[in-house]
Amino acid sequence: MATRFARNTPTGRRVVGPSRSTPRHSSRLLASTAKASAKTSDKKKTDTSKRPELEGHVAIDAPPASFVTEREGDEAKDSIRHKFEKLIRESQDSICAAITEVDGMEFREDAYTRPSGGGGITRVFQGGNVWEKAGVNVSVVYGLMPPEAYRAATGNDDAELNGEGFVPFFAAGISSVMHPHNPHAPTMHFNYRYFETEQWGGIPSQWWFGGGCDITPSYLYKDDMEHFHGTLKNVCDEHDEAYFPKFKQWADDYFMIKHRGERRGCGGIFFDDLNDKPKEELFEFSKQCQQSVVPAYVPLVEKHMNDEFTEDQKRWQQARRGRYVEFNLVYDRGTTFGLKTGGRIESILMSMPLTSRWEYDYVPAAPDPPTPCSRSQPWPP
Amino acid sequence: MATRFARNTPTGRRVVGPSRSTPRHSSRLLASTAKASAKTSDKKKTDTSKRPELEGHVAIDAPPASFVTEREGDEAKDSIRHKFEKLIRESQDSICAAITEVDGMEFREDAYTRPSGGGGITRVFQGGNVWEKAGVNVSVVYGLMPPEAYRAATGNDDAELNGEGFVPFFAAGISSVMHPHNPHAPTMHFNYRYFETEQWGGIPSQWWFGGGCDITPSYLYKDDMEHFHGTLKNVCDEHDEAYFPKFKQWADDYFMIKHRGERRGCGGIFFDDLNDKPKEELFEFSKQCQQSVVPAYVPLVEKHMNDEFTEDQKRWQQARRGRYVEFNLVYDRGTTFGLKTGGRIESILMSMPLTSRWEYDYVPAAPDPPTPCSRSQPWPP
Repeated sequence: MATRFARNTPTGRRVVGPSRSTPRHSSRLLASTAKASAKTSDKKKTDTSKRPELEGHVAIDAPPASFVTEREGDEAKDSIRHKFEKLIRESQDSICAAITEVDGMEFREDAYTRPSGGGGITRVFQGGNVWEKAGVNVSVVYGLMPPEAYRAATGNDDAELNGEGFVPFFAAGISSVMHPHNPHAPTMHFNYRYFETEQWGGIPSQWWFGGGCDITPSYLYKDDMEHFHGTLKNVCDEHDEAYFPKFKQWADDYFMIKHRGERRGCGGIFFDDLNDKPKEELFEFSKQCQQSVVPAYVPLVEKHMNDEFTEDQKRWQQARRGRYVEFNLVYDRGTTFGLKTGGRIESILMSMPLTSRWEYDYVPAAPDPPTPCSRSQPWPP
Repeated sequence: MATRFARNTPTGRRVVGPSRSTPRHSSRLLASTAKASAKTSDKKKTDTSKRPELEGHVAIDAPPASFVTEREGDEAKDSIRHKFEKLIRESQDSICAAITEVDGMEFREDAYTRPSGGGGITRVFQGGNVWEKAGVNVSVVYGLMPPEAYRAATGNDDAELNGEGFVPFFAAGISSVMHPHNPHAPTMHFNYRYFETEQWGGIPSQWWFGGGCDITPSYLYKDDMEHFHGTLKNVCDEHDEAYFPKFKQWADDYFMIKHRGERRGCGGIFFDDLNDKPKEELFEFSKQCQQSVVPAYVPLVEKHMNDEFTEDQKRWQQARRGRYVEFNLVYDRGTTFGLKTGGRIESILMSMPLTSRWEYDYVPAAPDPPTPCSRSQPWPP
């Protein structure tokens, strides 16, 4: 089936995409309703008796009711795997609906299954009215992780990996990046995930939650940053007052472009390997984090989406986009993990900005408020 | 000293760059004469009795006659180190002169020394009349290489690195990337280097030559590719008829964007660890490779620099630029080596295109000759 879809160009002109002779997957326009994913249920069962390579993905016309494969001994529908998948798909629906409400543009949807189990739903638009590119992905992955991917995923370079062969794992997550047109409106990224590894190489089976949400302005508005960080702090404080300072520091440490000695943006929260409370409680924490994305971020875009801007300010934004690319390709765990494990590349690199720029030794025009944001110090400054 | 330099914008309008309050290095406009580097000789001696970290670079107003540090026991001016530095600086002069002759724009020059010895000269212009960005760097580096950088530099992941601490090395090289505006004119990269490591961890001291030259068209012109590869083949054949097929294969294997299953472009030659003939002979081979860059590449740009092109063709070129960024940040040895060893970032990332684009699941307009070039098979097809 050839793919043909309508889209806006970056200049706002609507064009019709080329038909493709050898499609890798199907796509369809998604009505921005929170119930879109409930319409279909052509669930595909995966043979788990053999465990094929993690690589590969097969396009499907519409996502099944669940990508979670039931296995002997699982608690079936009540399992955390099912619950977490349901949560991230609801978050995907509600966040996409909120973005479309502001932008006016609908998300294109691509669904796929993976031969080793699981699958995903990618929703993206580009050349919108407010965002140059916005994407929200969910994925459910069963597979065998190469030891180097295990290290990349856990950041556990020093783990004594005595086992032979690959590490069996399950992962489900939602991830998103949104790049607005207006240089005064910030880029936002979030990712929330649940992870399990099976017993392997002397390491017992493990489960943990991870994720975070961070903001990357091109120009610094103090009030905006206070609103964004304050919203995340409120969510954290409801669960553990130690969380916010710890997770904020973690974000500051994580979102570092080491070769530049610069942070990617103004941070937010980041956590991984979180299993210090009962699963149910941490599930609630992840849920509230996901529900805080829209109230933390969308008001900042609504505030600035119609700001006037100069050619110099656009140029600076494009240079910051280049830094975003550098971080994602060189350091981001999710990206490097995905590239190593043969994930669906178009879904992984959905996070890339539509346009970016590398000027040699570029410095922005003299800082007259707003301040160009290129941070070597954590926020608050 | 604040930096202020004139440059063209991508649309051809000349603007004056902002002055910088905290310059990291000085810069000056370079007259495009082959003798430019001979004008100055404020040679800086580096204390080699202590070996500081490799990181850091200090701007200097003009490059010294040589960055090579004389050490006890060295053959002084006759050494291969001096000869190779002289060669790459002459190549930098002659290649920059040839490019400026076609483009009309002069290169900006930045020179620096490194605390651990050596230094470099970066020459870049952006927003030229023909090239959106062009850079030619030379660098001479003495230092202590972290074992992981040694592995990245040699590609020798399996080396039994029993030594403790860092690997002492010397490296000198010239590298270049040129991105033309016109989507019918190809991007070209070359890099030629000479490398020595000192005795370390049970591994005796080593020397080798490396490098290569490769072409990345957005649209495929068979005649152009035959000219480019043919020129490189002639140089190789003069030295060893086994070289071209071997080095061409090496380029096809090396310039692979693994996560895409695509090659970066149409290849060329690539070699490393070359020490199978006497040093003098391999020096001559490297020299002739460097001298072949202009005749192999520049005629292709002259042929296409004024070609008409459509908005769709420009868009496809921008998508190919995105692939270029992916290769360089994720796989390119020189780049990953530079980022890990604290090289001068602006010099390393000179290779980045001025502009690039990531469209979700983009495919170019239906192939009507010229053929959009996105290669999963080696050249010739």
